[in-house]
Amino acid sequence: MALVVQKYGGTSVGSIDRIRAVAKRVVETRMKGNLVVVVVSAMSGETDRLINLALKVSPHPRERELDMLMATGEQVSMALLAIAIHELGYEAKSLTGHQARILTNREHTKAKILSIETEKILKELEDGKIVIVAGFQGSDDQGEITTLGRGGSDLSAVALAASLKADVCEIYTDVDGVFTADPNIVPEAVKIPKISYDEMLELAGLGAKVLQTRSVEFAKKYSVPIHVRSSFNNQEGTLVTGEDAEMESVLVRGVTCSKNEAKITITGVPDKPGIAARIFSEIAKANIMVDMIIQNVGEQGKTDISFTVPKVESEKAVEAIKKIAGELGIGEIKSDPKIAKISVVGLGMRSHTGVASTMFSSLAAVGINILMISTSEIAISCVIDEKFSELSVRILHEAFGLSAQEAAKS
Amino acid sequence: MALVVQKYGGTSVGSIDRIRAVAKRVVETRMKGNLVVVVVSAMSGETDRLINLALKVSPHPRERELDMLMATGEQVSMALLAIAIHELGYEAKSLTGHQARILTNREHTKAKILSIETEKILKELEDGKIVIVAGFQGSDDQGEITTLGRGGSDLSAVALAASLKADVCEIYTDVDGVFTADPNIVPEAVKIPKISYDEMLELAGLGAKVLQTRSVEFAKKYSVPIHVRSSFNNQEGTLVTGEDAEMESVLVRGVTCSKNEAKITITGVPDKPGIAARIFSEIAKANIMVDMIIQNVGEQGKTDISFTVPKVESEKAVEAIKKIAGELGIGEIKSDPKIAKISVVGLGMRSHTGVASTMFSSLAAVGINILMISTSEIAISCVIDEKFSELSVRILHEAFGLSAQEAAKS
Repeated sequence: MALVVQKYGGTSVGSIDRIRAVAKRVVETRMKGNLVVVVVSAMSGETDRLINLALKVSPHPRERELDMLMATGEQVSMALLAIAIHELGYEAKSLTGHQARILTNREHTKAKILSIETEKILKELEDGKIVIVAGFQGSDDQGEITTLGRGGSDLSAVALAASLKADVCEIYTDVDGVFTADPNIVPEAVKIPKISYDEMLELAGLGAKVLQTRSVEFAKKYSVPIHVRSSFNNQEGTLVTGEDAEMESVLVRGVTCSKNEAKITITGVPDKPGIAARIFSEIAKANIMVDMIIQNVGEQGKTDISFTVPKVESEKAVEAIKKIAGELGIGEIKSDPKIAKISVVGLGMRSHTGVASTMFSSLAAVGINILMISTSEIAISCVIDEKFSELSVRILHEAFGLSAQEAAKS
Repeated sequence: MALVVQKYGGTSVGSIDRIRAVAKRVVETRMKGNLVVVVVSAMSGETDRLINLALKVSPHPRERELDMLMATGEQVSMALLAIAIHELGYEAKSLTGHQARILTNREHTKAKILSIETEKILKELEDGKIVIVAGFQGSDDQGEITTLGRGGSDLSAVALAASLKADVCEIYTDVDGVFTADPNIVPEAVKIPKISYDEMLELAGLGAKVLQTRSVEFAKKYSVPIHVRSSFNNQEGTLVTGEDAEMESVLVRGVTCSKNEAKITITGVPDKPGIAARIFSEIAKANIMVDMIIQNVGEQGKTDISFTVPKVESEKAVEAIKKIAGELGIGEIKSDPKIAKISVVGLGMRSHTGVASTMFSSLAAVGINILMISTSEIAISCVIDEKFSELSVRILHEAFGLSAQEAAKS
């Protein structure tokens, strides 16, 4: 008998028929003798509907009341799922985040899970019940309702799986698993049967949307195996798990593309110690995350600095620098939103050389100019002109042999 | 400085514009220096929408999960109201029934309020906040979410007013107050400025739909003055309060009509001791409430028994009697759903005679046959053929001089 945590996203519970289908799948898992804890999101579109109601009342609704409002979305879907499971003749009980004792800090709309008291859930499981927990929400030490931010239901599921020492955390979604590249861009992309936490973290951070980064970090920290799979069929999906010896044999696991960043370039920066620090502390003060930074060696005591920030905050970043431009004697400030970040990710890079050169030469071969480069232990990213983004993903997918046949080996 | 509890029903918070209007009214009350606790219902139609979702999943959803589902309705409207009040520059905080410490018993979908710990609400009021509490809901000693049954938000408001020792409980609705008769039936009906708890209880129990009976009982028990008024204008409504000397001067306060009952007649009942007891204990066993009972003196050791039960349960009642009909030697059992109960209510009846005779003779004058009669200390009810119901309300309204001019005296 295993303890299985299953998480169903918004599209998986998006209609009464879908909820019935989920109930059937949950019951099938229970019938196999497993203990089952289910985490549900709000029905697709519901969270946006609620936020829009709030925005009609006020352009800046307070986060505490937004949480109060949004938390109803999961409460509706979990109650309906419980009713659907009863209808199949099985025992089930739904619990809000507060009732499931998911304790968070007080940061409304982006709360962090501090702990989960599992006593109540374990008691219900012992009583033979399927336990359904509202995803995306918890409560703080004052009993205030909090939410965990977009994609927070994944985190709820992984945190519950960790606390309950579940055998596996199944994340049901509307795709078949994690792919070697976005199948919308690369038709030859194949499902990855098994991937390490670190690879998944890089892929998620670099644009793959299947899993939320925070939930993968959590899973890694507590060694929770995640099985990402589709709620629309019965195929095996992708197992996200700890590294094993075999994993390093694959040089590149996947290719991703992110268009969420803009490049800001400052020209004519005086080449003196402390200037870069001054610039980036000003941007940090504005609460903007900087991703990549490049500083060119310049001429005549002047240099250029380029860096990337989230596209939605690029104007704010430019404003922040303009404030100190005069004082520092800075030249021109330019913002370029038409860039894309293409990345290749794989554990094998740690022990094999040549990945970077293959990447650069493949892009060069078709005339794609690389604007910025950054590397981590298991990933290499290049910033390029946005218009080449799909092309470069296809080129790299082929260059690293990620087609069906190759992936089957891993 | 007074402490005011205001309750807004579903139509009063039925749209974003209506919620803004309610926020304005709440803030005006606060600006006058009052402490304000607001109780809200779900936006009109929302509770039905949620119940229908559940019914699509299962014809018999369990009550615990129905409560979980329905409780979201008030949670949405209270959060939106809080946001609307913030937008006007005032401090407000919404609380679920559980957070407001409204402790109920465990009877899902029709829970009774056991107690309210007011500490938290008082703390928020002291901090200068307007407190918004979800109506219709509470939680039991296990932290399970419960609801109080239809119209339960009135009860939440009155119970909060009692616990907080509020100066008044204002019930905002879509009508101007309590009327001498249903204005849809009697255009001359006028608003009653002041009415006693007992009169209001009789009116509510006998068909007036403005206030829920349980909430009036609660208000009476704890001497909470209720002000029933419209959220669509600023007119004074009806004050429901304890008796005063002046109140008895009005013979009849109002006329009501209820079409919710059916008359069941059993003919040829053996006129022996214990037979009636046997019949009504059988009906009680089926959990059916009997309202009026009439037993005619019969001939040849046989008698007829007539009684009324809720229309929706008349078939069940007939079935219950049929089960023992053979054993008791009972004749025929007939059910007549086409009846109406017309009532006149007034404290003055206690000290004045002649109300009954005026009622009977007024009905007789237009040829309306009285099928059954029942009386209480301050009400007289007649069961008549349903087709005369509107006519008799109009006749009695006139006979007791309840037109505008008369009512102004009270």
